[in-house]
Amino acid sequence: MAALFEKDLDFEFVPVDFATREQKTPQFLALNPFGQVPVFEDGDFKLFESRAITKYVAEAYADKGTDLVCKDPKISAIQTMWMEVEGQKFDPTSSKLGWELYFKQMFGLTTDEAVVADLEKKLEDVLDVYEQRLTECKYLGGDSFTLADLHHLPYLHILIGTKMKSLFDARPHVNAWASDILSRPTWVKVVSMSPK
Amino acid sequence: MAALFEKDLDFEFVPVDFATREQKTPQFLALNPFGQVPVFEDGDFKLFESRAITKYVAEAYADKGTDLVCKDPKISAIQTMWMEVEGQKFDPTSSKLGWELYFKQMFGLTTDEAVVADLEKKLEDVLDVYEQRLTECKYLGGDSFTLADLHHLPYLHILIGTKMKSLFDARPHVNAWASDILSRPTWVKVVSMSPK
Repeated sequence: MAALFEKDLDFEFVPVDFATREQKTPQFLALNPFGQVPVFEDGDFKLFESRAITKYVAEAYADKGTDLVCKDPKISAIQTMWMEVEGQKFDPTSSKLGWELYFKQMFGLTTDEAVVADLEKKLEDVLDVYEQRLTECKYLGGDSFTLADLHHLPYLHILIGTKMKSLFDARPHVNAWASDILSRPTWVKVVSMSPK
Repeated sequence: MAALFEKDLDFEFVPVDFATREQKTPQFLALNPFGQVPVFEDGDFKLFESRAITKYVAEAYADKGTDLVCKDPKISAIQTMWMEVEGQKFDPTSSKLGWELYFKQMFGLTTDEAVVADLEKKLEDVLDVYEQRLTECKYLGGDSFTLADLHHLPYLHILIGTKMKSLFDARPHVNAWASDILSRPTWVKVVSMSPK
């Protein structure tokens, strides 16, 4: 949704009811055989996997809204590299921390503090690399906001609302970057649409 | 290396000595701050993260060797979607299985069979989706071999040498696909260069 807003595209948001396991119905499995959200439809064209959807939106609508990718092979490769870092390093750690510190509380489950301590160390290692990178340029992919930053938004938003905020407070460049991208009007709009 | 061979590129392979923790030296950390292989250098241009490297090689050398990516936004998006499936679904499961069933034996450690049983179930779920997809087209990304297939090679190679082979034997389309891509001359060449 952040990518769609950045590209100034009109779209219809179709909620999927997890309470009735709508994501596991034959109709939904025909859209995504893994039975997960998000799924994206553009006319007859269908996609799943969030990072594939954002890349399609950024490339197919290159002439609209914010430039989120670059056509130069070397600049594009650097952006792809930081997207891979998000997918392979940031997400595996932050999504498990999000489960322990945010979703478990939502479902009335008990946080496993030993698991949190282990993940916190791993997140620190990732954020140390980001701190260094963000002394070289304002955003992970270079001097402008791209998908390499955008993909971080959901778990940055969640983690900064937990005790993991201290890891960001301790790293000035990471903290400034996180504040910057979390305050983009497009992301504020996404958050305002989320159920309270 | 498989991507470089597919693109018919001359390259120098520089081994990194894990025994002396060369990957954690300041010189190596300047190439990849996460202290991991592979790292790729093309003149002055440096990249880490294997999937970012293969995409750069495929795009920057589009006119050489095998076409591994497509410029059409929709076909490209479908290929990207299956690359994301590899990175987000196949790899997290297969790399942990590879650790339990292959690398632990190499290091004289004991395989945790309860962990293997859990991962095996997850791998079956992924391969069931692949089996369906591969009834629709010969390769994951469409009718030709692309990065969406190539990224699977290392862990396919490892898993098919373990008791996980039975999961492939039970799925004819997945098995034919795996045999096809593992027998590509470029991959056979990569395997022949590996230490025994």
